Amino acid sequence: MYVLVNVAMSADGKLSTRRREQLGISGDADFARVDRLRAEADAVVVGVGTVLADDPSLVRFDREHRAHVGKSGVPARVVADSRARTPPDAEVVTGDAPTYVLTSEAAPADRRKALVEAGAVVITAGEERVDLPTALDTLEAEADVSDVMVEGGGELVFSLLAADLVDDLTTFVGPLVVGGRDAPTPADGEGFVEDFARLHLDGAEYLDGGVVLQWTVEGRGTTE
Amino acid sequence: MYVLVNVAMSADGKLSTRRREQLGISGDADFARVDRLRAEADAVVVGVGTVLADDPSLVRFDREHRAHVGKSGVPARVVADSRARTPPDAEVVTGDAPTYVLTSEAAPADRRKALVEAGAVVITAGEERVDLPTALDTLEAEADVSDVMVEGGGELVFSLLAADLVDDLTTFVGPLVVGGRDAPTPADGEGFVEDFARLHLDGAEYLDGGVVLQWTVEGRGTTE
Repeated sequence: MYVLVNVAMSADGKLSTRRREQLGISGDADFARVDRLRAEADAVVVGVGTVLADDPSLVRFDREHRAHVGKSGVPARVVADSRARTPPDAEVVTGDAPTYVLTSEAAPADRRKALVEAGAVVITAGEERVDLPTALDTLEAEADVSDVMVEGGGELVFSLLAADLVDDLTTFVGPLVVGGRDAPTPADGEGFVEDFARLHLDGAEYLDGGVVLQWTVEGRGTTE
Repeated sequence: MYVLVNVAMSADGKLSTRRREQLGISGDADFARVDRLRAEADAVVVGVGTVLADDPSLVRFDREHRAHVGKSGVPARVVADSRARTPPDAEVVTGDAPTYVLTSEAAPADRRKALVEAGAVVITAGEERVDLPTALDTLEAEADVSDVMVEGGGELVFSLLAADLVDDLTTFVGPLVVGGRDAPTPADGEGFVEDFARLHLDGAEYLDGGVVLQWTVEGRGTTE
């Protein structure tokens, strides 16, 4: 499974305000770039926090680019959702694209059932929290999803990095400061105190008044 | 008063780990760049959180570069410290460079006195928290400090941005992910929910496996 994480953050590393309200960090050129990334992916992945805060549909992508790269159909939607908190009427569940909810044994059976009835495929792995390596393996084996683009939020991104599951990280850094010790960042969770996720910078590109940084994840390691 | 903020952050916008332990985000080339910035400044400014976490001396700077830019003496040290929590034996107080502690009426008199006895100049402005515009005006009028470089932490940087006191912001973005919803970021505080600090990107430069982003602060404003 190839995993690309793509996020837009402010110059001080925030995905949104402390109220988790979306804000215009990038612009049309970056949106077009993200639509091309979605077109290249078998699935677009978000955490349930993003679903609950933004209710995204995740159906937009660059159709011409998808044809150009030789992919058929549409990108599936995947929600990492340990307790199946995704509302069955969420935009990410409705619509034509397939939806997969990665959950754990701790998710109540009635919520899993409601998601299945709404048309989602529920993949269960792990006891209290979704076991991401196993869930992604199942997604690849059963749904032929081998190339995903993760759009956040910070809790999911940190969990993926902690499990050493991320291949590449792309960050758009935008021309504003949001601030806030409680505002979401590209990688939240507990955070590393050693064995940080080490990166290699592949390139930087000016876009929408900010810069897109392309990083390869080299794995966990110390800083000295 | 010209105010430059310079910080080094991870690719996910963290200044250090959740334990506030310093870590190697940048490298020798960035340290040399920071030493040149210090050499160009009348004073180096930090918040008391940084003093308590790292006990920096803030005396290192590029002496050759300081002579080259025509400045005499050494950069002063300034601590923004509403309650005068700076220990009188902190590295930032001892040593040859002058030290100014910007504090508020809420700082206990005995702590202010101990700092004065240790050799610091205490500037008091504001009731509960230091009134930064007034304190910086006093610093300029009484100490001839008209050009400062702020090295963090995120609480001080957010307060300065909220008061529209920052002219330029430079961020080194380093090749690692630290993560952590409680890890310090370049701008913490309450955070903006509207009237964000708007920036203009002046340039980007590869350095030490990361990138240095040079931003001008254009003032507070909306994102749309």
